[in-house]
Amino acid sequence: MSTKEISRSLSNDFFSQAASFLNTYVTRDHSDTPVTRLSPPEDLKSRFAEAGIGLSIPDGQDAVAPEELLQAMRLTLDYSTSTGHPLFFNQLYGGPEPAGIAGEWLAVAANTNCHTFEVAPVFTLVETEVLAKLARLIGGPYSQDHDGLFVPGGSIANIYGMHLARNRADPAFKQRGAQGGPRLVAFTSEQAHYSYRKAVALTGLGTDNLISVACDADGAMSPASLQEAIKAAEQEGKTPFFVGATAGTTVTGAFDPLEPLSKICREHNVWLHVDGAWGGAALLSRKLRHLMAGCERADSMCWNPHKLLGMPLQCSVFLTQHADILRRTNAGGAAYLFQPDKLHAEYDLGDKTIQCGRRPDAFKLWLAWKAYGDAGFERWVDRADELAQACEIRIKESGGALQLVQRRAPFNVCFWWVPAQLRPYTPEQATPAAKDLLSKVAPAIKELMQQKGDAMIGFQPLGSAPNFFRIVFAGAKLLQDCDLDALLQRINAYGQQLFPAQQ
Amino acid sequence: MSTKEISRSLSNDFFSQAASFLNTYVTRDHSDTPVTRLSPPEDLKSRFAEAGIGLSIPDGQDAVAPEELLQAMRLTLDYSTSTGHPLFFNQLYGGPEPAGIAGEWLAVAANTNCHTFEVAPVFTLVETEVLAKLARLIGGPYSQDHDGLFVPGGSIANIYGMHLARNRADPAFKQRGAQGGPRLVAFTSEQAHYSYRKAVALTGLGTDNLISVACDADGAMSPASLQEAIKAAEQEGKTPFFVGATAGTTVTGAFDPLEPLSKICREHNVWLHVDGAWGGAALLSRKLRHLMAGCERADSMCWNPHKLLGMPLQCSVFLTQHADILRRTNAGGAAYLFQPDKLHAEYDLGDKTIQCGRRPDAFKLWLAWKAYGDAGFERWVDRADELAQACEIRIKESGGALQLVQRRAPFNVCFWWVPAQLRPYTPEQATPAAKDLLSKVAPAIKELMQQKGDAMIGFQPLGSAPNFFRIVFAGAKLLQDCDLDALLQRINAYGQQLFPAQQ
Repeated sequence: MSTKEISRSLSNDFFSQAASFLNTYVTRDHSDTPVTRLSPPEDLKSRFAEAGIGLSIPDGQDAVAPEELLQAMRLTLDYSTSTGHPLFFNQLYGGPEPAGIAGEWLAVAANTNCHTFEVAPVFTLVETEVLAKLARLIGGPYSQDHDGLFVPGGSIANIYGMHLARNRADPAFKQRGAQGGPRLVAFTSEQAHYSYRKAVALTGLGTDNLISVACDADGAMSPASLQEAIKAAEQEGKTPFFVGATAGTTVTGAFDPLEPLSKICREHNVWLHVDGAWGGAALLSRKLRHLMAGCERADSMCWNPHKLLGMPLQCSVFLTQHADILRRTNAGGAAYLFQPDKLHAEYDLGDKTIQCGRRPDAFKLWLAWKAYGDAGFERWVDRADELAQACEIRIKESGGALQLVQRRAPFNVCFWWVPAQLRPYTPEQATPAAKDLLSKVAPAIKELMQQKGDAMIGFQPLGSAPNFFRIVFAGAKLLQDCDLDALLQRINAYGQQLFPAQQ
Repeated sequence: MSTKEISRSLSNDFFSQAASFLNTYVTRDHSDTPVTRLSPPEDLKSRFAEAGIGLSIPDGQDAVAPEELLQAMRLTLDYSTSTGHPLFFNQLYGGPEPAGIAGEWLAVAANTNCHTFEVAPVFTLVETEVLAKLARLIGGPYSQDHDGLFVPGGSIANIYGMHLARNRADPAFKQRGAQGGPRLVAFTSEQAHYSYRKAVALTGLGTDNLISVACDADGAMSPASLQEAIKAAEQEGKTPFFVGATAGTTVTGAFDPLEPLSKICREHNVWLHVDGAWGGAALLSRKLRHLMAGCERADSMCWNPHKLLGMPLQCSVFLTQHADILRRTNAGGAAYLFQPDKLHAEYDLGDKTIQCGRRPDAFKLWLAWKAYGDAGFERWVDRADELAQACEIRIKESGGALQLVQRRAPFNVCFWWVPAQLRPYTPEQATPAAKDLLSKVAPAIKELMQQKGDAMIGFQPLGSAPNFFRIVFAGAKLLQDCDLDALLQRINAYGQQLFPAQQ
């Protein structure tokens, strides 16, 4: 049998069965399936080995039969965490959306690359149109002109913002490098995403030159503190060049006040980038877009439709109001790829990027936008806010068993389950022993949930607040109020079981 | 209708139709379909608009009916370049492989993220096992210990290599940044991928500090030139820290001589990174792995299974022989994600990365490896080499119509179609007028091919060589010798049509 025949026979027999199985998986009803089937790594390895398709790939791996491949695919999904389950609240993504999945499957089947128009004509135009739509949503200067890209994740998008800012502040940077240039310093809030720390470590700015700005009680960057930090840096002879604001912080969901921040940035000629990976979805809602007011004055922003809009991972947008800046900053002009003497070369997007190949991540969002329309997307975003409000009310009415960590932002609710002996829990008056006990509660409840497989929710400490639960509504469009009740009831039941009231 | 109901009805009706249509697309026979349906951007926009689903997303976009979404999906694929067609030779990818597509569709359906074990238990273990298999294939120190990640593309993989090297050469770099540190310089060959230039621009090293090393006549880096370049830099008080070698250059497919390069790097305490994005596949072939000899001494390497192995885009591996170095270099320790007090936290891969979220790109490769085994993968790689040899013979036997640009490397063949009046074409003796005419040939033939839609092949100039065709065998496993004949016959026929012999 030739290799061609081997490949073809897999294509026609195996592939159709795989597609049918995956169709069933995507369209399944979650009510009978667990959120997760917790298995320690060694158990997982045993299960695959018992099915005749071990997880390791030994030396001299033989080809296995199509039936075994299908069995391996079934096992993989059986033991994968079901991020589409209504009771998956663990991450800022979930509830993948069928038009998005169909769009992504199409992109996989087409297997091409958004570097040149000739290999991706439709995907190139779709990316351009989706970016134009988003730019109009932001408004202000963005409606006039903009530049942008879909990139592999919000962390990379934040790197793009910082990179453009640096080239503007120090035009010789690209050629000369950081050495011998101005002593640049960047600013983010103490609750900004950790990707900024990674970005300064990667790009040779150094973590010493990333200045952490204090937040107000809600977790939003304080404009007065920013003003002060910039002035202090200037007095030390440093050159402030970048402020990384956040629209929807990772833990508490706070929105930095973009209008006052943009005013300060203009005064000091500093690039304002808005990390809206999570909260950027507020732009889609007439009710919530006030949270993004001032965003149109930002030099750049990012937004991850794979988060609150439930597009399949990854779907991340980087946008800037500065036309043609990406090509000017990043172009490498590779002669083998961006030949000026080929047809429609002026539509090629690839030389704008720091990558070379790039997946057509815009297509799934385009298809979903056509499927649901502006109004559909708006309802999803508003639904996340409604659920957060409903959650807040339930916490306040829980009689002290559940307690808010702080005032809520639209899409996140942070709370403790408080053991009976610590109620009422007053953070300011809590003893070290009380905090120590409370820090053990969320991990223990979560572990029991994972063992039972009936819900997943994240926890973390923040500042002086010991481990607390964070509920996020990435899959809000699929959620009913009863799903929220189910989660809170489970937390309460498992809390009582693990931390019974002392007699 | 609630948003949940809207979403569900799309899921069950629309999604299954979409899945069925895509299944048909993936398993289709290409013989009746064009490689590309060339349409200028304005024509494409008209076609979508006529079908009732314009490419732009207007203000107040309405939800469109599922039938229109399906029609839009059909149009998208009709007007997408068919990279799976046997006569698509345009890029270093193509011929997507059914087990790979099935694996990728599964990953999309699972919609999770390889940052933590708890949300991606199987995918995390699969990534770890595939990396271990690749490390054993490399051999040497890699069999003992290694570290690695799947990353979004070879360009990003090269950035990883340079970043680790820099932190080793300058341990204070992460905190202090580039300023005030040693004057680091990096070396790549003049035929290395352009991503290195992007990498030094991004990471604050600066293009001035990327030194271009001369190649031999085959396009491989000259060890003597590297030795000289390193010594010259040292004499100027600079600190050489990184050599970016290439295994399979983009245009000519040359393999840098890794053993002598690794010896020089050890002598000067310089990190050797091997960009094997294209040629790394040689490791899978007993016949060809000699080309990678010395790779096991490299500090790090990358390989893109989405290239010669036909995995769906993207599938890129970064590997290093230095255990645990990724976490030590990149960890941000975000408390909301990498909680040490959750189950199996020691398996989390996410803090090794410069991203936060990361797609489970290893899974498709794992599934395909199980499907075809070591021997199947080896046959695909050997087949690419066989086809390149067959192509070279045809060119040599073409009586001067086709002419090799230079000696061939295993997976690439570079050649001109020479108009009759320029035969025999001798590069050394060619007049400027002859070169000027020859530079117009490949673009014109390619344009006609695109208009007819019956083949696609890339071209580029290189050094003093005017535009020539580059044939690459990314989809080799699907190719028969007659496909190669069809391509060369078309090039010849279109050449004669466009550049007829002068009377």
